[in-house]
Amino acid sequence: MRISELSARTGVPVATIKYYLREGLLPGGERTAPTQSTYEDRHVRRLQVIRALIASGVSIAEVRKVLDALDDPPASPHDLLGAAHAAVTPTAEGDIDTTAAESLVERLGWQPGLCDDSLVAGIARALNTISQADFEIPDAVMSAYLESSRRIAQAEIANVPTDSPEAAVRYVVLGSVLIEPLLLALRRVAEQVASAERFGPGAPPTN
Amino acid sequence: MRISELSARTGVPVATIKYYLREGLLPGGERTAPTQSTYEDRHVRRLQVIRALIASGVSIAEVRKVLDALDDPPASPHDLLGAAHAAVTPTAEGDIDTTAAESLVERLGWQPGLCDDSLVAGIARALNTISQADFEIPDAVMSAYLESSRRIAQAEIANVPTDSPEAAVRYVVLGSVLIEPLLLALRRVAEQVASAERFGPGAPPTN
Repeated sequence: MRISELSARTGVPVATIKYYLREGLLPGGERTAPTQSTYEDRHVRRLQVIRALIASGVSIAEVRKVLDALDDPPASPHDLLGAAHAAVTPTAEGDIDTTAAESLVERLGWQPGLCDDSLVAGIARALNTISQADFEIPDAVMSAYLESSRRIAQAEIANVPTDSPEAAVRYVVLGSVLIEPLLLALRRVAEQVASAERFGPGAPPTN
Repeated sequence: MRISELSARTGVPVATIKYYLREGLLPGGERTAPTQSTYEDRHVRRLQVIRALIASGVSIAEVRKVLDALDDPPASPHDLLGAAHAAVTPTAEGDIDTTAAESLVERLGWQPGLCDDSLVAGIARALNTISQADFEIPDAVMSAYLESSRRIAQAEIANVPTDSPEAAVRYVVLGSVLIEPLLLALRRVAEQVASAERFGPGAPPTN
């Protein structure tokens, strides 16, 4: 197909496609004339992935790392998940106290060597931001966070397709990144529902 | 205290504090000389909130809306949660099909009028991004997302302090925004743990 059809099929403007080509995110098509190339279905699939990652707030540099993991997958799905997480986890700036983060990670079932230091640092940064705002998470709420994280991860990993490496790669890399906005949006709605039940009209008085 | 001590106590550079003062995010101190003002503990608390929101990726314009909700809280915690969510939920661009989002929202316990259209649109946008990447969420995984969202929200709302309106306001507004990076970081670690259990060394063979 020509670049105009590639644009029509993916909804990505031609100028943007040309930008991805120049940046090397999208492999070039087969050249059919000095100023014309032809593209395949694999270009459509790749563009869908790029657009989805960008729409999720992933930077061009991070998209490149995720695409590298897709193109040259590590041997096992576990290593692949590590590569996908590394691509979208910002590297730590400066030292950060990880004591509290490590104790949470242990409650998630972690054992030494099971997960990257950068992920523990990610939890430490999040906790740091929360405590800088002088915000305390009640114990019962933290338990709900930990149990829910475990429940979600177990369902996700139990459903990784193992019939083809390509399917496993897509599922792990995209699932890790694309699902985040959905989870945050679901939590907001669930909060409104729970809040209406507790504080809304018809709810029992609170004081 | 002088602006230098305010900076030392919050870790926010003096130049940044002056920027927040100019932008009206931070109320001015009491002027003690033509070029000198004195600041109180309430300035420290406000700066902690601003810094935490900015660190969570909230824009200056959104920070302003959250601070407005803190300064002039709606009558009930439920309305306040709505204001906080509205401040941090991007407004929809163009029409979007909300059919699939509405059916998820119903499974969360939603009834007409219980939550804002913008939240349903947020779920619809997230689903849209996922389907643009040709990614399908298995039913068992989606059920885990919905049940976990409900469990998290119920624990959070059950723990809203009702002893003082100010405490409720802080808890609802900050909890809604600040917790998001923590939840995402916990999910990543839980995924690595579950993945090591399924695919790592010592795990049963998958094929």
